[in-house]
Amino acid sequence: MSDPADSQARLAALVAAVRPPDDRAAAAARERQAQLTKPPGALGVLEDLSVRLAAITGQCPPPVPASPVVAVFAGDHGVHAAGVTPWPQEVTAAMVENFRAGGAAVNVLARACGARVVVVDVGVAAPVAASADVLSRRVRAGTADLSRGPAMSTDEARAALLAGADVAAGLAAGGHDLLLTGDMGIGNTTPAACLVAALTGRDATEVTGRGTGVDDATLARKTAVVAAAVARLGERDLADPVRLLAAVGGLEHAALAGFVLGAAGAGVPVLLDGVIAGSAALVAARLAPAVVDHLVAGHRSAEPAHALLLADLGLRPLVDLDLRLGEGSGAALAVPIVRAAAQLLGEMATFDAAGVARKDA
Amino acid sequence: MSDPADSQARLAALVAAVRPPDDRAAAAARERQAQLTKPPGALGVLEDLSVRLAAITGQCPPPVPASPVVAVFAGDHGVHAAGVTPWPQEVTAAMVENFRAGGAAVNVLARACGARVVVVDVGVAAPVAASADVLSRRVRAGTADLSRGPAMSTDEARAALLAGADVAAGLAAGGHDLLLTGDMGIGNTTPAACLVAALTGRDATEVTGRGTGVDDATLARKTAVVAAAVARLGERDLADPVRLLAAVGGLEHAALAGFVLGAAGAGVPVLLDGVIAGSAALVAARLAPAVVDHLVAGHRSAEPAHALLLADLGLRPLVDLDLRLGEGSGAALAVPIVRAAAQLLGEMATFDAAGVARKDA
Repeated sequence: MSDPADSQARLAALVAAVRPPDDRAAAAARERQAQLTKPPGALGVLEDLSVRLAAITGQCPPPVPASPVVAVFAGDHGVHAAGVTPWPQEVTAAMVENFRAGGAAVNVLARACGARVVVVDVGVAAPVAASADVLSRRVRAGTADLSRGPAMSTDEARAALLAGADVAAGLAAGGHDLLLTGDMGIGNTTPAACLVAALTGRDATEVTGRGTGVDDATLARKTAVVAAAVARLGERDLADPVRLLAAVGGLEHAALAGFVLGAAGAGVPVLLDGVIAGSAALVAARLAPAVVDHLVAGHRSAEPAHALLLADLGLRPLVDLDLRLGEGSGAALAVPIVRAAAQLLGEMATFDAAGVARKDA
Repeated sequence: MSDPADSQARLAALVAAVRPPDDRAAAAARERQAQLTKPPGALGVLEDLSVRLAAITGQCPPPVPASPVVAVFAGDHGVHAAGVTPWPQEVTAAMVENFRAGGAAVNVLARACGARVVVVDVGVAAPVAASADVLSRRVRAGTADLSRGPAMSTDEARAALLAGADVAAGLAAGGHDLLLTGDMGIGNTTPAACLVAALTGRDATEVTGRGTGVDDATLARKTAVVAAAVARLGERDLADPVRLLAAVGGLEHAALAGFVLGAAGAGVPVLLDGVIAGSAALVAARLAPAVVDHLVAGHRSAEPAHALLLADLGLRPLVDLDLRLGEGSGAALAVPIVRAAAQLLGEMATFDAAGVARKDA
């Protein structure tokens, strides 16, 4: 752990680097959309998406992302001991090995769209070997049980956040032009539900879902854990996103909050996956409200908190196919749609160039 | 026009060639999904889609489509004279030239997913030059005005239908392994609305939409045209899909009905675009109910009839982004999702192979 005063200064710099997107590029994109050989608005959400990409990148037409990368942040959760999931905790580490071997859903979906997968261990309980695309940024070996006290210290939350930001900055500097969020952590929908409840004011019953498949008894237990943890939060926890992460978050949630801030600061679009990334984006938006304009929602997961937080952030998801897997799977599935939006704006003919008549006034 | 008795025999053979999909391959796909390293059901619609592709192709895992093609059927509509759209009729031919030059939305989206675009002139009012990927299968130079009488003769409707089936068979024989529907025809949402109203029993007000952007007065006129045309239909029109196409359809609608039947008969999956293709699929399903199991709905368009007909066919769309352009744009956007579903089933690791524990019983 680095010096707390130093890490506070680094966080302040990270937040300050998030600027509003480029209004001029956005206006140019809107103007160009109106010239293309199609009825105005006929490309629906793809038109808005092209404008957003222009604003984020400051270019019209925006570049078509050529080198996407999924950063899968992995961590374990002390709240596993409270019985919030039927999956053994060792599945987190086993899935990291599955990612390394290329056999998980996110690996297949990344191959399908030409994206790289980078795994970042921010706190898996079991040891994880580092390798080319498995980075070791361990803050602690899993969080403490948030049903019995804070999940971690504020210094640890800040360290995880800065680790995520470092990863984003490194990937952007390495030429990746679209950063996808991914996550792996058995039990991680419980801290996500806590964060969403705390930041949106929703009741635990509204934000707690079945995650990767829990039965009624487990869902009731999980909901009670979320309700109690949120009830325990004080005013200072609610006012300070880093304290909130420490109290009821997870290491991958903190890292993802830093990841989206780092990407936004680098001017690279972020494609969000599901409820874990979404809860982290909510946290990031409390630190730097302008970050939201740098985000694209890849999909809407089946987890109930996800639709609520997307509405809170004002983001419309691109894919809505009842996925509830995490890993970055929903974000990877949306990559071709992001590319299509940019490519349409760049390559479609204009009415004048194609000699196509417009509709009668 | 070929001999009517001969064309009736060809239509009967086309219908007879549509068989139920392969239940064994579907069962094998379901079984394999349960072995993959993810919670059961966590890939949502992608799991069902992989099963459907297995059933259509008779292979588990199904092949990942390597050579998709969009067939854009183009035709004009006599009902244009009734004032149902603000776009000049000559835009149909101008857009065919835009397709030829590669500047339309469907060209860009096809390039993005590696699909070929083939345009098929089944009845554009103005002359269209044939070339490598612009096929001439003209049945007549646009339909008659369906607000004043039948759009075409039953022989013409059958000829257009068989032309579409020929195109599908030719593309499948040429190695294309995913057939996408496309359409171009100023005014063609009016016959689509008539077909949907006639085949689902919905009121004209429910199925008539703003198409590529009509104002309130034009929408009212269009709705009245649809209502009157449907009211004019007799029992024989409602009982015989070819008579129905002749009465209130369009040349591209008839060709698309044949196209989906031809693709189904060849065992190649069909990826449907919007409301024009959907209305044609409804017609095809009346001729051969088993055709529905060979179809995948690419997207849901903003046109109100589309959601209604998808529900009638029992199809869930893959993309839902308020597109209302036609051309095959929504189908092309869905190609990566279709590929992803097949690739996940083929490439993901199993629990046993990856050594990942399953959830506690």
